[in-house]
Amino acid sequence: MHDKELEEGTALTPRYDANGLISAVVTDEKTGELLMLAHMNEEALKRTIETREGWFWSRSRKSLWKKGESSGQLQAVTEIRMDCDQDAVLVKVIPGGDGGACHVGFRSCFYRVVEDGALVERP
Amino acid sequence: MHDKELEEGTALTPRYDANGLISAVVTDEKTGELLMLAHMNEEALKRTIETREGWFWSRSRKSLWKKGESSGQLQAVTEIRMDCDQDAVLVKVIPGGDGGACHVGFRSCFYRVVEDGALVERP
Repeated sequence: MHDKELEEGTALTPRYDANGLISAVVTDEKTGELLMLAHMNEEALKRTIETREGWFWSRSRKSLWKKGESSGQLQAVTEIRMDCDQDAVLVKVIPGGDGGACHVGFRSCFYRVVEDGALVERP
Repeated sequence: MHDKELEEGTALTPRYDANGLISAVVTDEKTGELLMLAHMNEEALKRTIETREGWFWSRSRKSLWKKGESSGQLQAVTEIRMDCDQDAVLVKVIPGGDGGACHVGFRSCFYRVVEDGALVERP
């Protein structure tokens, strides 16, 4: 399963899933830390590329969503990368507002470790 | 939209999507680099937790898949984290084999940057 044009070509041809979405991994430009995992439809990706701000698709609210619009945690995009089969995008950002990305109050959404079958909060 | 038990509790209660999947972000334990974005169903997550090796669900092949089984790029799992609303998992790994994670031959699947609407290979 190797599609040379898709995987080694220069054309940006995102492979949206049945719901029209690709996965978006958001990391901190400076530290490389994983901040959040979200989803983008075609419009969200287009806006992120054009405005250099993080735009996503909310699966629960079924609406386009500019990160930080209500929280102030705007994301200044410094780099956008596509993965090999173009169904995932990496967005490196400088987090605005309080510097966080998670609505629960943590910098990263991944604040709990799986230990002995349960979740434990860890820095 | 804040579910205290889901987001701040200690119970591991993954929220699988309509296809029974959650997103899995795989990073390098040592460098923190994003290696790949994949998907897990309940069985893949269970096996990853129990065996401490990276197991995933292949959406294209529609089958359970142990990373590295054919390529040798086995993933020794050092930490597993869930995100706030438990629909994404972060898996930190020590990559085996040649140290890579991408079938195209790169260490990370995210080897191309979006620049001026096209993809450019960048370290």
